[in-house]
Amino acid sequence: MERELLWFEDVAAGQVLRSARSIVVDGEQIIAFARQFDPQPAHMGEETARDSLLGVFCASGWHTGSVTMRLIFETLHVARGGMGAGIERLTWFRPVLAGDALSVVIEVLAARPSRSRPDSGVVTYRCTTLNQHGEKVQEFTTTILMPRREPGAPDASLDGPSA
Amino acid sequence: MERELLWFEDVAAGQVLRSARSIVVDGEQIIAFARQFDPQPAHMGEETARDSLLGVFCASGWHTGSVTMRLIFETLHVARGGMGAGIERLTWFRPVLAGDALSVVIEVLAARPSRSRPDSGVVTYRCTTLNQHGEKVQEFTTTILMPRREPGAPDASLDGPSA
Repeated sequence: MERELLWFEDVAAGQVLRSARSIVVDGEQIIAFARQFDPQPAHMGEETARDSLLGVFCASGWHTGSVTMRLIFETLHVARGGMGAGIERLTWFRPVLAGDALSVVIEVLAARPSRSRPDSGVVTYRCTTLNQHGEKVQEFTTTILMPRREPGAPDASLDGPSA
Repeated sequence: MERELLWFEDVAAGQVLRSARSIVVDGEQIIAFARQFDPQPAHMGEETARDSLLGVFCASGWHTGSVTMRLIFETLHVARGGMGAGIERLTWFRPVLAGDALSVVIEVLAARPSRSRPDSGVVTYRCTTLNQHGEKVQEFTTTILMPRREPGAPDASLDGPSA
């Protein structure tokens, strides 16, 4: 399910990448993740979820984020691994229910060579996680470093068309 | 390790909560999480990490976030479970290395009754994750709903001191 390795030179603003598959999040996985990381009543089973503030048995937001990361890994399959410094803004729109099948859409918003690290480029993208009905369950924007195929090579785009 | 259940009425802007314990993230856990959710070379072992862009074997950021959620659960132990709609801005300051012991500091930035849900209050907090050296490894701000002890009860703070 993994695509070819991508380098900084392979991405450009405006590009849209879609995961080749979806990942089903089942009830057992929701409970296993919650038991380890987020044992709030909404994530521990149908019964405990009933009296929770959320009121419905659903995956921890961190579980949704982690499954999303897996789909990003397969979709924007960065050579040497990307390097993320954070997340701009993350929204959980609706609960991920047992049996939901998640997929991602990655929209590249910006891509430029790094000034401080000549071996890398700086790439900003928005990642939207969808369920099997095409409904948004999560969205965030992030900026990562991606390695350049030819580290330190002068980038003509920095100097304009005359370079 | 779990504290008493907290309701909206128990929190106020300016409050600072610290986790009662730290959680050690060992190398096996880093690899197990990565294998499932984020199999980038930096998270899959010392050897693959060497040639990664990060250059060091360390936990996936989503792993750090998930361990942080566990510490939040134990520290801001919300009755009926909190309900988060997202994260304002999340920063990963430095890698979480095998054997690091993580703890959290939660600073309540704002707390007000919800206008749309009379059973809840709206609480904004900043969560800082520290390693055993007291260095910041992660920080984010989030807004959650917390249930009120007396749902729908009129809140004097909405009407000022004369109420």
